[in-house]
Amino acid sequence: MAEDLVLSIDGMGGDNAPDIVVEGVDIAAKRSPGVKFLIHGDGARINALLERYPAAKAASTVEHAEKSIGMDVKASQALRQGRDTSIWNAVQAVEQGRAHAIVSAGNTGAFMAISMFRLRKMEGVHRPALATRWPNLKGGYTVILDVGANVEADGEQLVEFAIMGEAFARAVSGKERPSLGLLNVGAEDQKGHEEIRAAAKLIRESGVDMDFQGFVEGDDIAKGTVDVVVTDGFTGNISLKTGEGTARLVAQYLREALTSTWLAKLGALIAYGALSQLRTRMDPGTFNGALFLGLNGLVVKSHGSANGRGYAAAIGVAEKLARSHYREEIVRNLDRLAKAEAAGAGKSMEKAPDNAPEKEAG
Amino acid sequence: MAEDLVLSIDGMGGDNAPDIVVEGVDIAAKRSPGVKFLIHGDGARINALLERYPAAKAASTVEHAEKSIGMDVKASQALRQGRDTSIWNAVQAVEQGRAHAIVSAGNTGAFMAISMFRLRKMEGVHRPALATRWPNLKGGYTVILDVGANVEADGEQLVEFAIMGEAFARAVSGKERPSLGLLNVGAEDQKGHEEIRAAAKLIRESGVDMDFQGFVEGDDIAKGTVDVVVTDGFTGNISLKTGEGTARLVAQYLREALTSTWLAKLGALIAYGALSQLRTRMDPGTFNGALFLGLNGLVVKSHGSANGRGYAAAIGVAEKLARSHYREEIVRNLDRLAKAEAAGAGKSMEKAPDNAPEKEAG
Repeated sequence: MAEDLVLSIDGMGGDNAPDIVVEGVDIAAKRSPGVKFLIHGDGARINALLERYPAAKAASTVEHAEKSIGMDVKASQALRQGRDTSIWNAVQAVEQGRAHAIVSAGNTGAFMAISMFRLRKMEGVHRPALATRWPNLKGGYTVILDVGANVEADGEQLVEFAIMGEAFARAVSGKERPSLGLLNVGAEDQKGHEEIRAAAKLIRESGVDMDFQGFVEGDDIAKGTVDVVVTDGFTGNISLKTGEGTARLVAQYLREALTSTWLAKLGALIAYGALSQLRTRMDPGTFNGALFLGLNGLVVKSHGSANGRGYAAAIGVAEKLARSHYREEIVRNLDRLAKAEAAGAGKSMEKAPDNAPEKEAG
Repeated sequence: MAEDLVLSIDGMGGDNAPDIVVEGVDIAAKRSPGVKFLIHGDGARINALLERYPAAKAASTVEHAEKSIGMDVKASQALRQGRDTSIWNAVQAVEQGRAHAIVSAGNTGAFMAISMFRLRKMEGVHRPALATRWPNLKGGYTVILDVGANVEADGEQLVEFAIMGEAFARAVSGKERPSLGLLNVGAEDQKGHEEIRAAAKLIRESGVDMDFQGFVEGDDIAKGTVDVVVTDGFTGNISLKTGEGTARLVAQYLREALTSTWLAKLGALIAYGALSQLRTRMDPGTFNGALFLGLNGLVVKSHGSANGRGYAAAIGVAEKLARSHYREEIVRNLDRLAKAEAAGAGKSMEKAPDNAPEKEAG
């Protein structure tokens, strides 16, 4: 892409905004000289901060917004009262074609609602989904979606999540053909909800061009068995939060172990460098940046508690996506899916008398 | 309980049976002199092993079973071909009143199917559930159910799980009034599935005697926010497996960190004692033992890969439950629930014209 990439930034969203936002922009600006930033929010505060970050200052334009949306505002309220807030204006800049993607560390519900309202769904997408990454034993990241946008999803919606997640994985990992699995309670075909079995059947029969590996289980996320794990937003949200809780528990066990005796303390002191690297590796900031997939615009959500480095990681996700063909790939596969469904519907009707499709009747 | 407690043991279930089973019985026999064991399986092999474990030998009777059920046999097959296997006979001993509880590390699906078929559901229970424990930051364990027996659960079934899980928690933790939460994607009342909201309402209005704390999230399991976390078997299974996978990932990161440089290796060597204790603490064996709740008999499932110490932990769960009043408590609360539902149904009908219960109609 020869033209400059412009990212629209919600300067006021997040636990430590606007400070960590400007710090994150500074890190990103040094890393990626071709990127420009449109920062929305309290002009006086943001400009004052930019004085301390020359790289960010050089790459940024500040657009003043009178208001911002608090973390406890509900999505419905945000839609009614959100106009002229930093999130609203950040989203609007993409809608107006003045920026290629939005990044916010603010209120997730409000951000999703405003993005959906202003940018609208892509044609062919019924339910947008929130995708994120989880580190795995193979040294990479597993993409998982939906992690909270929809508490329920039928078979067709799960297939749409698969199509969007696979394109997202290719864009952020550079892998030509990411593999894909549906999250279930076992690998056998007859396991799980009707919705998941329907999704598996649909992916296999639709001719969408994906490396589909069938069902995977919860522990496959951290194993990295497949590159993309697809589930509904209820299961995805709860399982990742269970994983986060477990990681914190183990970290706490480790701290207790390494301070339990003077020998343990001495050992920890000697291994300090390695343990610091471990801490960095376990810092959620290193894989920060969830994507709200399926809209006419790139919408990236940073953790609310991200530090500057974490915020820069979320900006990195937005950059990669904006420079990729992920949108075209989604469109292409959604088109295949629609054709397969149309053909499949016709086929079922033709064959119904011979086949006695007992299972499809349910 | 003055009389001897008798536990029925599936000698052949598990990855390293019968060896680890007999080893586990030996550890348990030394720990709990009042307990007798009825071990089912290959008589020659088990008797030969008992020669090496005098404590187990003194406390055990071996009942020969010609066959055993492999780990890949399906539940339906197990029901058809399971007769005279070690699991079948172990369950039957409880059915016949010759033992107080069963322990098996074998095929979970087969074990649940045979237990359900032979022991039948408790009166008032619609769907039995699998409950397990997860270590938490408070230094104790969080009980979580269902972790795999039912892929779906409606509001009433979730309340039954709550009643059974709460009684289980009291029996194994000794806590007089364990607190309880429903697993959801947020703490607010309007969040999540209809089933969960219905369950919350039912618990609040039924007058069942429980310390219900409302909705909890995935990370609350490891935090120990409540003593009992209730969910359907699909969500429970996937979230705990995600947690297990994450724990293994962090352990792998730690191993890599502590072998990455010679200083790290030296530090690890000096802190060896503390790190060994950490390993023990993270060993799933220390909290081994899932309970299949809601049957006319105590059914305890050990991890298939448990070692002798882990198997002894599962035996410990069976002992505690067999010596507790947990069954009576379940019966009492199920009875209250039934009365509340009957009363609630009557009340709704009376009030319907005034209340316009729009939400209940859906």
